[in-house]
Amino acid sequence: MLLGYTGKIAWVDLTQGSIDIQELSEGIAKKYIGGKGLGAHLLYKHLKPGTDPLGPDNIMIFVTGPLTGTNFPAVSRSGLITKSPQTGTFLDSYSGGFFGTQLKWAGFDAIAIKGKAREPSYLLVEEGEIQIKKAEHLWGLTTSETEKQLREKVSSKKGERMSIAAIGPAGENLVKFANIINEKRAHGRGGAGAVMGSKNLKAVIVRGNLKPHIDDEAGFKKIIQRCRRQIAEHPMTKKGGAFPKYGTTMTIDLTQETGTLPSQNWQENTFEEKEKISGDALLNYVTRPRACFACPIGCSRDSKASVNDKEYMTEGPDYETMYALGPNCGICDPAVIIAADHLCDDYGMDTISCGVTIGFAMECFEKGLISKTETDGMDLSFTNGTVLLELIHKIAKCEGVGALLAQGSKRMSKKVAGSKDFAIHIKGLELPGYDPRGMKGQGLSYALSDRGGCHVRGNTLRTELMGLPEPIDRYGYEGKADMVRKLQLSYATCDCIIACLFGSFAITPKDYVQAISAVTGWTITEGDLQTVAERAWNLTRLFNAREGFTRQDDTLPERLFTQGSTKGPSKGEVMDRASFDKMLDEYYDLVGWDKATGIPGEEKLKELEIEK
Amino acid sequence: MLLGYTGKIAWVDLTQGSIDIQELSEGIAKKYIGGKGLGAHLLYKHLKPGTDPLGPDNIMIFVTGPLTGTNFPAVSRSGLITKSPQTGTFLDSYSGGFFGTQLKWAGFDAIAIKGKAREPSYLLVEEGEIQIKKAEHLWGLTTSETEKQLREKVSSKKGERMSIAAIGPAGENLVKFANIINEKRAHGRGGAGAVMGSKNLKAVIVRGNLKPHIDDEAGFKKIIQRCRRQIAEHPMTKKGGAFPKYGTTMTIDLTQETGTLPSQNWQENTFEEKEKISGDALLNYVTRPRACFACPIGCSRDSKASVNDKEYMTEGPDYETMYALGPNCGICDPAVIIAADHLCDDYGMDTISCGVTIGFAMECFEKGLISKTETDGMDLSFTNGTVLLELIHKIAKCEGVGALLAQGSKRMSKKVAGSKDFAIHIKGLELPGYDPRGMKGQGLSYALSDRGGCHVRGNTLRTELMGLPEPIDRYGYEGKADMVRKLQLSYATCDCIIACLFGSFAITPKDYVQAISAVTGWTITEGDLQTVAERAWNLTRLFNAREGFTRQDDTLPERLFTQGSTKGPSKGEVMDRASFDKMLDEYYDLVGWDKATGIPGEEKLKELEIEK
Repeated sequence: MLLGYTGKIAWVDLTQGSIDIQELSEGIAKKYIGGKGLGAHLLYKHLKPGTDPLGPDNIMIFVTGPLTGTNFPAVSRSGLITKSPQTGTFLDSYSGGFFGTQLKWAGFDAIAIKGKAREPSYLLVEEGEIQIKKAEHLWGLTTSETEKQLREKVSSKKGERMSIAAIGPAGENLVKFANIINEKRAHGRGGAGAVMGSKNLKAVIVRGNLKPHIDDEAGFKKIIQRCRRQIAEHPMTKKGGAFPKYGTTMTIDLTQETGTLPSQNWQENTFEEKEKISGDALLNYVTRPRACFACPIGCSRDSKASVNDKEYMTEGPDYETMYALGPNCGICDPAVIIAADHLCDDYGMDTISCGVTIGFAMECFEKGLISKTETDGMDLSFTNGTVLLELIHKIAKCEGVGALLAQGSKRMSKKVAGSKDFAIHIKGLELPGYDPRGMKGQGLSYALSDRGGCHVRGNTLRTELMGLPEPIDRYGYEGKADMVRKLQLSYATCDCIIACLFGSFAITPKDYVQAISAVTGWTITEGDLQTVAERAWNLTRLFNAREGFTRQDDTLPERLFTQGSTKGPSKGEVMDRASFDKMLDEYYDLVGWDKATGIPGEEKLKELEIEK
Repeated sequence: MLLGYTGKIAWVDLTQGSIDIQELSEGIAKKYIGGKGLGAHLLYKHLKPGTDPLGPDNIMIFVTGPLTGTNFPAVSRSGLITKSPQTGTFLDSYSGGFFGTQLKWAGFDAIAIKGKAREPSYLLVEEGEIQIKKAEHLWGLTTSETEKQLREKVSSKKGERMSIAAIGPAGENLVKFANIINEKRAHGRGGAGAVMGSKNLKAVIVRGNLKPHIDDEAGFKKIIQRCRRQIAEHPMTKKGGAFPKYGTTMTIDLTQETGTLPSQNWQENTFEEKEKISGDALLNYVTRPRACFACPIGCSRDSKASVNDKEYMTEGPDYETMYALGPNCGICDPAVIIAADHLCDDYGMDTISCGVTIGFAMECFEKGLISKTETDGMDLSFTNGTVLLELIHKIAKCEGVGALLAQGSKRMSKKVAGSKDFAIHIKGLELPGYDPRGMKGQGLSYALSDRGGCHVRGNTLRTELMGLPEPIDRYGYEGKADMVRKLQLSYATCDCIIACLFGSFAITPKDYVQAISAVTGWTITEGDLQTVAERAWNLTRLFNAREGFTRQDDTLPERLFTQGSTKGPSKGEVMDRASFDKMLDEYYDLVGWDKATGIPGEEKLKELEIEK
């Protein structure tokens, strides 16, 4: 019997209306651990290359890890693995909240969903059983309204524990960057919400009390105590520390002062009115703190604001949301950003992609590449907050100009002549808020991310901006390939366990290894875990290669190579193309990938025991 | 010609009244770099084993490094190397301010002083020339008054640049923990001030304009720019960051919350009235910021306070001063601590040793081991601030009970029956403010420090309390030997360059290596610098071995092995003796020292090219 795990993976075929429950073998569990690793294994094995991400054959997999559902701190996240409709690449996305815990307690390590329901449906997953239910009455509702109605319908008593992941109108309308939302937390980036919408699946409800069995209860408790102490003492995670106090909003101070805060669609990398949206400024809007299951950090908070006499309430905003819907659109009013965040969550859309696509549209408008004829008469100038909110409504509903933006920056740039060089995406995924022109390693990390332009596939924030473990020249290229490689593995490790990246400030690989060993009864080492992470990273690369991605796709938006900002600490800096290519060469050498194609070499695959 | 260096070492014989200027060869400069390395080489070579530290044959050496006197940031410190009258060990002590810069500009890499002047004297070191001058009129004056009178006497015009290192009454009276003070900065710990007093030397004045020649001016300037940027961006050193804002006083928040803040002579390791002396509380007393030469951090500040209608002004207090004269004596009034700091500086005494010795006396008094008969009628209870200040006066003057305390805790504990187990020193040097019962690696670091109980010979604050580069179990013993070894080498590297430890948060070994290479024209590597540090660390160990120190002396105060605190996060924790011995075994193995004796092995000495 597998300890820590439920040992069960459910396969739901919405076309057939069938449920097939399969066993998770110990061999596969050990080889892939969970999360990214397990998800990549299942998707690589079961998805035919070339599958249309929005067709019935795409597969979406909700997944957990070996510590999910235990009291170990900061591991309550759940994963969602699918093929992205926005990029065509592998997509893995992790969400905080309570969904992962409830999924495990409902009796499953993973639920893989394929096919397309004939009519709008939802899944009810309870204590080892899964039912496909009708959801016609929910179609068209926002994510929060969907959750509310489902909770009322399913609960036998008030306050009953369950978790609901749902899509909103954006997912239904197949907006390319639609998210899946659970209690205001998102499986974000890359359009998993559109995949769910394409399957006529409105929501997934998980609940149960099947708590995982643990091999060494006493030992595990001691490890938990020690890790909670480390969290309680680490400057980033302790009470009153950066994460509990600010969430990630304090990052804006750091990126501003280092010239890495993209603004006006990446024309600049500082923002003049930054103090209006600083971490401290945002505190004025906070109404209450929030935390995920069993998390002593509590990095989240509810914020409230009014815009044009309408009240908005959101969980967040986090740094990325602020950057994308704020400075990147020339906006410095926190109330507008909070309202925009609220709308994106309610419609079920990714705030980064939404904000960056709007910023891109604003620059297109200012440059005269699109005019009021195309914008339904709206003035799309930077700084226009009212238009920002209006655009969000239109995108989610695919109305008027919204239908154009709902395709994301990459597809939109193909339709707007002369805009390609300043469309800020990689492989179709819009970039998050760290400008590689001021931190060259971040550029490499972005270019190599398996799901396109992403900041959580080896972010160099800690190394290049915070100077940890020791300061380095962030404008330099030397040594960056190996730095990025190490960061990628450390992020992939967290994503296989599905451990929170913030928790990992205070919890080390050694702690995770000890915790997993105590829970499962296995004897695994830090080296084993590292190999699992590397295996996952190579498997997603192999997935993308199978879909036709090569070295040529490992690149950056043209603007970053050719146009520097006009002010601030990174003024005039660009990514030098030759140095970037050299970093890529070095990286491929280090990881054992072919330099011409960027495809993992046979030797590496053999070493990692990956079969093509 | 040596670049960066002056190439000159002055030997001053106060008995003979002679000055002998010798060349610093390139071979020696490369082998020892400067600071600790160069000082250890000179002292080991020239001091006869068994020399009385307060006799005329002891040698005291003011020393600089290759970057001293350049515009490189945070390298303005000077070193003082001698045999300690408090511990009988090697003593190296580094002071901030302007003395190092002026010494270099006065034309010397180092000044070694031996003998004893027939009458009170001072040295005037100007542009390559040294004069021995009479100082009878200065004898008995405080350090600040000495500096003021000398500055007036020597200046030809107002505001003329020079630096003056002087002793006060404590040094004259051979108080075992007397310091040398320059502009309120101290060559502290271990009694260098008493050595200077024993030589009838009141002060050393250095001034000049002989700035060092630099091999690659343009390259050096670029490195400086980069390092200044790193300082400007690092969270600890940037404007508004921890060091500029608080100096080291914010440490008290960290040690309190981790149960490592010693109080009441180490009976406890938390302090109930901690918020009265927190970093923020101390800001209320600050009058102006202070910085060393060419330092963009500026961690220092002047503070002002009144006690019993008397006004006190000090540069500081720093964390160690606060701990020792505050919680360790049960004192929670910042004004009293500021007054005590002022008095210690003016008398020229070490605040840590002074505070810990007073705390020890207080416990002796409360336990009835000394009574009012011995204390000149004073009530030496903990928390008595008035008595604290009175004791400082008496210690510096060696009056009444002050003469007993002026011997330091170790010698005092031999005279007070039943007090030995709670005398808080190692090898005679009183412990700084980090309690190893809550951070086991710190205990090993203390025990192995070459100058006795010291926190700047491999402090584990960053690793054990701040969790950098990654969190570890601070109560554990595993892996601590190697952690301490690495930290010791990193501190020794700074001490050979004489780089500020705070600067080294933002400046890396690679930066230092590039800077030294640009200045000297040598091609040195990080590995070379590491070897220099290890060589210095082994040489001081060899010095101590020659003086009779063995493994038996690498231990901790008995209280730390046997008595835990009664509250707080580290409640009940002690240093486990067997685990401590095991750490020591591991350490000796790692560094190539004999496990029975603790003496560096022949192989290690050969590897480091050290001749006995």
